[in-house]
Amino acid sequence: MTNKLSPQDVELLKEPQIANVATVMADGTPQVTPVWIDTDGENVLFNTAKGRVKHRNLVRNPKVAISVVDKADPYRILIVRGTAEFVDDGADAHIDALAKKYLGVDSYPGHKADEQRVIVKVTPE
Amino acid sequence: MTNKLSPQDVELLKEPQIANVATVMADGTPQVTPVWIDTDGENVLFNTAKGRVKHRNLVRNPKVAISVVDKADPYRILIVRGTAEFVDDGADAHIDALAKKYLGVDSYPGHKADEQRVIVKVTPE
Repeated sequence: MTNKLSPQDVELLKEPQIANVATVMADGTPQVTPVWIDTDGENVLFNTAKGRVKHRNLVRNPKVAISVVDKADPYRILIVRGTAEFVDDGADAHIDALAKKYLGVDSYPGHKADEQRVIVKVTPE
Repeated sequence: MTNKLSPQDVELLKEPQIANVATVMADGTPQVTPVWIDTDGENVLFNTAKGRVKHRNLVRNPKVAISVVDKADPYRILIVRGTAEFVDDGADAHIDALAKKYLGVDSYPGHKADEQRVIVKVTPE
């Protein structure tokens, strides 16, 4: 648990590691999904599409927990809990940047014309 | 999401992959932690110590979500949601077996004399 990202946390978040994001469903049960992860140096950022389960959950209850474990070293771990904020501006460019980071391609191959992307920004609490 | 483990799911769970377990805190916010993972072929099993945050959360609210992502292939994923059951019998032997699986040692090096281990059994729902 951290309430401010350390330089080591930022380093981990800048690597192409898979994070797991936990949210709470409408019925009060937990939900968890793997995501690509990013940071602006102070916040943890991920990207989703509006209307997906985790987005709907976070609109209703913005509390979120994120776990990042180095795939090469399971003792190198970051756990963040915080409140989700939604950022529309730049969300398409952000998912393209994540596709570059994780897949080495210039444009996110999963993009759908009828899908609105959103950046989820989580400040560690 | 699955409601019965496939042979491929069982294979993933038998490998030394890191899982992430999501529970719900007393205040209704989500919590997530990495764990060692195991299966009996039908259920997902992990091991914790009584009194830890995730154990206290699961005693109060047994709903749990588990994500397993292959560290070598981020598209090989298992997500299970279910209800935690607690198994005391064999919990010390189980954490030793997990230490063998993950660390290659015969006995769990983190064992504390004042700590009671418990197996958490999750049947996919």
